[in-house]
Amino acid sequence: MGLTIQEVIDTLTEQIGQFPKGTDRLLYGDALSPVRGIAVAFMPTVQVLQQAISQGANLVIAHEGVFYRHEEIGLTDAAAKEPVFAAKRRLIEEMGLAVYRCHDSLHAMRPDVIMQGLLRELGWQEHVVEEQPTATMVSLPEGTVGTVAEWVKARLGLASLRLVGDPAMPCRRIGLLVGYRGGREQAVPLYESCGLDLILYGEGPEWETPEYVRDAIQLGQRKALLVLGHRESEQPGMKLLADWLSGWFPGTPVRFYSEEPVFTVV
Amino acid sequence: MGLTIQEVIDTLTEQIGQFPKGTDRLLYGDALSPVRGIAVAFMPTVQVLQQAISQGANLVIAHEGVFYRHEEIGLTDAAAKEPVFAAKRRLIEEMGLAVYRCHDSLHAMRPDVIMQGLLRELGWQEHVVEEQPTATMVSLPEGTVGTVAEWVKARLGLASLRLVGDPAMPCRRIGLLVGYRGGREQAVPLYESCGLDLILYGEGPEWETPEYVRDAIQLGQRKALLVLGHRESEQPGMKLLADWLSGWFPGTPVRFYSEEPVFTVV
Repeated sequence: MGLTIQEVIDTLTEQIGQFPKGTDRLLYGDALSPVRGIAVAFMPTVQVLQQAISQGANLVIAHEGVFYRHEEIGLTDAAAKEPVFAAKRRLIEEMGLAVYRCHDSLHAMRPDVIMQGLLRELGWQEHVVEEQPTATMVSLPEGTVGTVAEWVKARLGLASLRLVGDPAMPCRRIGLLVGYRGGREQAVPLYESCGLDLILYGEGPEWETPEYVRDAIQLGQRKALLVLGHRESEQPGMKLLADWLSGWFPGTPVRFYSEEPVFTVV
Repeated sequence: MGLTIQEVIDTLTEQIGQFPKGTDRLLYGDALSPVRGIAVAFMPTVQVLQQAISQGANLVIAHEGVFYRHEEIGLTDAAAKEPVFAAKRRLIEEMGLAVYRCHDSLHAMRPDVIMQGLLRELGWQEHVVEEQPTATMVSLPEGTVGTVAEWVKARLGLASLRLVGDPAMPCRRIGLLVGYRGGREQAVPLYESCGLDLILYGEGPEWETPEYVRDAIQLGQRKALLVLGHRESEQPGMKLLADWLSGWFPGTPVRFYSEEPVFTVV
């Protein structure tokens, strides 16, 4: 008898902890089934599911949910009949895929696994000067907002970033926030409390931190903001998890599926 | 005795209605003060406030709040001491500016004033085929996603848009949603219920509607999404309101302040 899905979940829970009453659970599949291969991705897109199937994986471990919302509350009758929803569910069920959501426990680990992955991908682990539960501060030896933006784009393979501020502004102390942590309550106080020049976050409301930074600049302060995108900020963390899974289950194929940015800029 | 701030608010309430328990109220200023000039803007940025002061206006009517959040709940002691917050409040109070938030009532009017402004700016009023409370559907005679994107950029003066989909896809039926109405619950059902090729919204969570459209395309469906930006989708509605205010108060200077996009793409 080979490795079961439940054994993978148990190892995940041992290694990264379990977040009580959170999002993390087996959304589809039978926990007692044997695992033929593990597919890891930020988002369980139709393309990821199709590729996992074609490459023989039957367990998908994803950071986000299957049906385009944070809380997996089950589908209403109307949503279940909607063609995209119906086809995606049919694909999962008919191909016997198991889908495990791994979100809250990754963020609750100290340090946050998703943040660890982003720092690794950026090559900034040695520059960390402060770790808070939802933000990590780095201090770079030298640079400007523009050189940081170019570094981030090159390391993460991105065509563009969204900036509030002046690319020529000198920039050493940077605050990083992954996912949807770019809102005023989480991001704005860090500029003062941590003496930041620049914040780099995944996603947040446009009328909150970006408008704060715009006002700060108008008032003569040196502050800047780079918006990475949600996937762009969190995918490296799932790549790190895939590497860990490979180590924990050496006899089982583990493959990380990198997704293209969901947006193109036109 | 000239026009008072209260009289402006009363006229606004008569003309566009009042939304019970909503955001709309005088955030700063004395309702009984005389109005020397009215400044209208999407966001009461520091730059807008400074320009209003220098051009003699003492009443700012803005769609969004002063302090970077939707609900105006007052400032905590910590926020009040934060340099940007403190300087912005000092600017308002020392210069005797009145700031009126005009948000919910504009969206609650039928048709939504902010949507009317966007349709006017896009030149699409004659193409409207269906109006719902939070979305308006237009049917264009011909075009592709790419030609629609170019039209929108040219009409709204934007350097770029974010796209999910194929610019070459033929596109006639378009759903428009202003502001933060791009989430799954409001946007996704419209593709099927209204037979839409394309949705164009202001802002929404990246893991919701964009990922739905990505999956739909992977499943062979013809769907696309253009993301305008929050300000980009709502500013034309405030410009329309400024035109109305000019008509209601012919003896009072009314000036609309157009803001640059908060982000630049680097």
